[in-house]
Amino acid sequence: MVKRDWHFKANHQVHAAASFTMRNILESIMRNIDETRTGKPMIHLGHDDPSVYPCFRTSPVVEDALMDAIRSAKFNCYADGAGIDPARRAIAEYLSRDIPYNLTTDDILLTVGAEHAIHVLLTALASPGANILFPKPNYPTYEAREKFSSLEVRHFDLLPEKGWEVDLDAVKALADDRTVAIVLINPGNPCGNVFAFDHLQKIAETARELGIMVISDAVYAHQVFGEKPFIPMGVFGNIAPVVTLGTLSKRWIVPGWRFGWIAITDPIGILHKNGIVDCIKSCLLITADPRTVIQGSYSSHHEEHTRVFLFEFNKLLKEAADMFFEKLKEIPLVACPHKPEGSMSALVKLKLSAFDDVIDDVDFCMKLAKEESMILLPGDAVGLKNWLRP
Amino acid sequence: MVKRDWHFKANHQVHAAASFTMRNILESIMRNIDETRTGKPMIHLGHDDPSVYPCFRTSPVVEDALMDAIRSAKFNCYADGAGIDPARRAIAEYLSRDIPYNLTTDDILLTVGAEHAIHVLLTALASPGANILFPKPNYPTYEAREKFSSLEVRHFDLLPEKGWEVDLDAVKALADDRTVAIVLINPGNPCGNVFAFDHLQKIAETARELGIMVISDAVYAHQVFGEKPFIPMGVFGNIAPVVTLGTLSKRWIVPGWRFGWIAITDPIGILHKNGIVDCIKSCLLITADPRTVIQGSYSSHHEEHTRVFLFEFNKLLKEAADMFFEKLKEIPLVACPHKPEGSMSALVKLKLSAFDDVIDDVDFCMKLAKEESMILLPGDAVGLKNWLRP
Repeated sequence: MVKRDWHFKANHQVHAAASFTMRNILESIMRNIDETRTGKPMIHLGHDDPSVYPCFRTSPVVEDALMDAIRSAKFNCYADGAGIDPARRAIAEYLSRDIPYNLTTDDILLTVGAEHAIHVLLTALASPGANILFPKPNYPTYEAREKFSSLEVRHFDLLPEKGWEVDLDAVKALADDRTVAIVLINPGNPCGNVFAFDHLQKIAETARELGIMVISDAVYAHQVFGEKPFIPMGVFGNIAPVVTLGTLSKRWIVPGWRFGWIAITDPIGILHKNGIVDCIKSCLLITADPRTVIQGSYSSHHEEHTRVFLFEFNKLLKEAADMFFEKLKEIPLVACPHKPEGSMSALVKLKLSAFDDVIDDVDFCMKLAKEESMILLPGDAVGLKNWLRP
Repeated sequence: MVKRDWHFKANHQVHAAASFTMRNILESIMRNIDETRTGKPMIHLGHDDPSVYPCFRTSPVVEDALMDAIRSAKFNCYADGAGIDPARRAIAEYLSRDIPYNLTTDDILLTVGAEHAIHVLLTALASPGANILFPKPNYPTYEAREKFSSLEVRHFDLLPEKGWEVDLDAVKALADDRTVAIVLINPGNPCGNVFAFDHLQKIAETARELGIMVISDAVYAHQVFGEKPFIPMGVFGNIAPVVTLGTLSKRWIVPGWRFGWIAITDPIGILHKNGIVDCIKSCLLITADPRTVIQGSYSSHHEEHTRVFLFEFNKLLKEAADMFFEKLKEIPLVACPHKPEGSMSALVKLKLSAFDDVIDDVDFCMKLAKEESMILLPGDAVGLKNWLRP
């Protein structure tokens, strides 16, 4: 037999999706840094990972729980697709404290962090011809996953002059009878904003009018340090069904532990009736699982310490945000329309006309990396050309 | 505005894929068990998870390494898409011991166990019109993932009368110029066989003739207890490019830790040249990551203990396989054509004509669960009707 040429080809759709990830975008900027040439050590303000700084260390409570789970040898086994019941129950109890009805074990489905939850949700909702509403600006992972699903994406604006509130008129104009969901990130990444109770209620009412569900990304739940409290979107689950994404990552400063959940907050049972919950569960069966041992380590014991831990953590975040906002006023080339009040990020507008050698935000970030060894995420990466996310 | 009906629909393709998973199949059998009614406690012989039995406990070496990694607080951060370098390097060194060339850090890509690796590989290879060759019988996860990718699957037989060797004539007849890869599981799951050196070489030569790559599932690497040693498929990487799947799961009896890898064993560089390696890396960027802390705990220290740990573990497996094979001879209604010599499973043929009230293997397993509270995986689940996988 004659030897054939090697004829396997790569799936190039994957590259298109990957180009939208934070990692790929930041890597292309980092390639401009040469610390030896400039003599300036790298300052990385582009990532969402406080755990790399010694002042942001997780609690011994969380570490000890995980070590006990390992030593028990009870959690070396495979877990159910939706996760082990004690962890699901503990999360249900924890989330129920802040909403007007009780979540059950069955309402909580465990994931390998929020990225996996996003993947699962966008897959479960990708029925033929369906479309979904994403905010603009948005967290890049949503845009990356969408390139890889068959859902059509439509973007509505968040309004910087209104504290990054949702442009509800735009939402109504975009939706049609093939729209399945609206995605919200609160506290906001990349905007650093927090939605008020009234605004969240209006969003839920709009979703009800449009007949769509709300995907509420609460990865930064309770990480607020401005005047507005954190209100879970699930509070309005009786108006429109809500699916909430949560993780240990940000709250306990352990993003690399990769443990998150999807919470079904749907007291009127629409998501069960329409088969969405079953579909999410099926999707969990055919995708990666969070480690059983991290599931086993999670208990209500964690959450008893949340208040104290987050109080100290938010104090640090507030100090950083205050300093950031004040110092920024001294830089005439950028403007921040809204002081950060939650999450760990903010958006500032680049006054492009003030530069004579900068083409756009990406060019600015490339040059900043080259000249100052400093990394910022260009607004382009989150859907806002000529903004920056420090 | 008039309220619209809730109109989101679930993606039913997901259910089709999930129905092929071990979990779904076993769950449908377990639903027949009623321990209270029968007074018989459940005996579960259907899963691949020894960690639930106290005699199969992982080593304190592995537990201690993970606890040290947690306490160091160095691994709470996000990792790179392909994993952290020290873990990748340690795995490269470990795998290089058994093949005639050296793997580098860059040849190892870390995954959330083998399931994630299978997902990534089938996604990376799913170029339009491509097809892939799967063994029959096969591990169900491959079939489940395929329902969810655009790859066309073609099945070649493993031959029970030849110790479950690959039917190479069938492979040649199935392949065409759109075939991208052949999947092999060695040591075999579900067959419990081990491929000999000469047979592996013939498979590689066939792949070379056909111009396809080999996906070698070595999840049970070195778990052999018959006469044949374990030979990694990567030994033949100079004949045809090989991508090897490995995990900690089975070797260290910690399947719930969810840590695995894809090893590129391609000394002639075909997979790099054809963009397959870059595509796998892009796919890792947009899918879940293995926990950084488990990556951080892995070092060459683990592998120094492998020999001793596996020696004891394989002794236990051999005792179990010997007893299984001898006792089975006393049961006239089943036959095992090939004594298990590796992995943790075996296939036995059901002599259906000897029953008057059993329709097929699935019916047998349902009735066995109902009457005896015993769970076996029906052969149907692995592609062999009227066989059983104890």
